[in-house]
Amino acid sequence: MNLNSLQNKIKEFVDERDWDQFHSLKNLSMALSVESSELLEIFQWAKEDEALDSKKKESLQDELADVFYYLLRIADKSGINLEQALLEKLQKNAAKYPVDKARGNSRKYTEF
Amino acid sequence: MNLNSLQNKIKEFVDERDWDQFHSLKNLSMALSVESSELLEIFQWAKEDEALDSKKKESLQDELADVFYYLLRIADKSGINLEQALLEKLQKNAAKYPVDKARGNSRKYTEF
Amino acid sequence: MNLNSLQNKIKEFVDERDWDQFHSLKNLSMALSVESSELLEIFQWAKEDEALDSKKKESLQDELADVFYYLLRIADKSGINLEQALLEKLQKNAAKYPVDKARGNSRKYTEF
Amino acid sequence: MNLNSLQNKIKEFVDERDWDQFHSLKNLSMALSVESSELLEIFQWAKEDEALDSKKKESLQDELADVFYYLLRIADKSGINLEQALLEKLQKNAAKYPVDKARGNSRKYTEF
Repeated sequence: MNLNSLQNKIKEFVDERDWDQFHSLKNLSMALSVESSELLEIFQWAKEDEALDSKKKESLQDELADVFYYLLRIADKSGINLEQALLEKLQKNAAKYPVDKARGNSRKYTEF
Repeated sequence: MNLNSLQNKIKEFVDERDWDQFHSLKNLSMALSVESSELLEIFQWAKEDEALDSKKKESLQDELADVFYYLLRIADKSGINLEQALLEKLQKNAAKYPVDKARGNSRKYTEF
Repeated sequence: MNLNSLQNKIKEFVDERDWDQFHSLKNLSMALSVESSELLEIFQWAKEDEALDSKKKESLQDELADVFYYLLRIADKSGINLEQALLEKLQKNAAKYPVDKARGNSRKYTEF
Repeated sequence: MNLNSLQNKIKEFVDERDWDQFHSLKNLSMALSVESSELLEIFQWAKEDEALDSKKKESLQDELADVFYYLLRIADKSGINLEQALLEKLQKNAAKYPVDKARGNSRKYTEF
C-alpha cells in the first residue's frame, strides 16, 4: 500500500468516529510528541547495546504504529507529501553533511 | 516508492557516512523524540484554528521529514514492518474505539 | 525547604535504592522528557480555555512532581545551581525580549 | 529565594510583557515539553559515561532554566504547590518502590 492509501485508510477511521473536529494541527502535533515519548520510554533505562527482547519489541511495534498514524494524519491535514518531503530532506542533508566531513562523526553540521 | 525502498535509501545515506555506529535504538528513539518536539514547537503558541502560513508550512515539511526519517530508521533497525504495524494497530483501535461509543468523543477508551 | 534540601532528599531516596548507577545525565534527560510528555498528554485534546477539573488537577500535580524530581536530580548530578540558572536566564530573556518590543506578542525574539 | 518568590518573579516578567494571555495550561505544557526536548538533544548522541564539557554544561544550564521557568509557571497557574507535590510523590514512590524490592533494579514497579 502506498502512503496515500494509508492516509486514506486513517481518514476513513477518523471520519467514522467523527474525530476530525479534534484534529487541528496543534492537537495532532501534541499527539505525535506524546507517542514519540512513549516510544522513548521503552529505552529509558536501557543499556546502549541492549538487545530487544520480545516484550519490548511488541511495545516498540505498537508505538511505531502510533507515531506513524499521527505523522500520516498531519501530512494529510496539511497537504504535505511525506515521501517527497523525505527525499528533499535527504538531498538537503547530503549537502549539509558531505561524506568527507561527516564520515564517522556525530557532530551537528554547524560544528564542522 | 514503497516504505522498503525509502528505508534502503536512508540506510545508504547512513552507511556512506558511517553513522550506523551511532544508531542504537536508544539513540534513535531520542532523535525521534527531539524531532517530534521541533514539530510541536511550530504550533506552540498557535491558536487552535490558526491557518498554516507558507513559512510555517515549510518548517512543518522539514520536521515531518525528520520524524519520518527516524521512524523508518527505527523500523529498519528493529526489523518491524511499519505498514503492517499500522494496519494491525488500526484493527486494535477499531476494537477499543467502537464507532457507537467513540463517535464525536475524544476520551481515552479507558474512560468510556 | 530550599532547593538544596529537596535535592538532598531525592539523593537519599535514590541512594537507598542504589539507583545512582542508572542516573547518567543521558538517562535522566530521557526521563525528564518522558515525564514532561505525560504532563503534555493531560492537555492533549483539551480546549484552550478548558477549566482544570479535579481529576486532571490530580494528574497534573503528579506529573509536575515527576518533572521536578528529574529536574532537581539533573541539576544535582551536573553541579548546576538551579535557582541561579533561572535568575540568569530571566536576565538574558529581559534583554532578548525588551518590554516595548515583546509586549502582547508571542513571537520569538529572532522574528522581531 | 523560595519557590513562591521565584514564581512571583516570573509572574512579574510575564505581566510586564502582557504574555499571560498566551499562558493557557495547554500552551505551557507544550512549552515545557519543547524545552525538555532541547535538554534531551544535548545528550542525543552522547556516550552513557561521557563527561560534561564546558560548552555542553552551559547549554544544560540554559535548558534547565527554561524547564524550571515553565514548571514554576504551570504550578502557579494551576494553584499547585510544587514542593508539596514533590514530597507527596516521594512518599508514594517509597511505597511503590520499597527498598528491598527496588534495590539496584531499574524496572517499573508494575514489573516486580
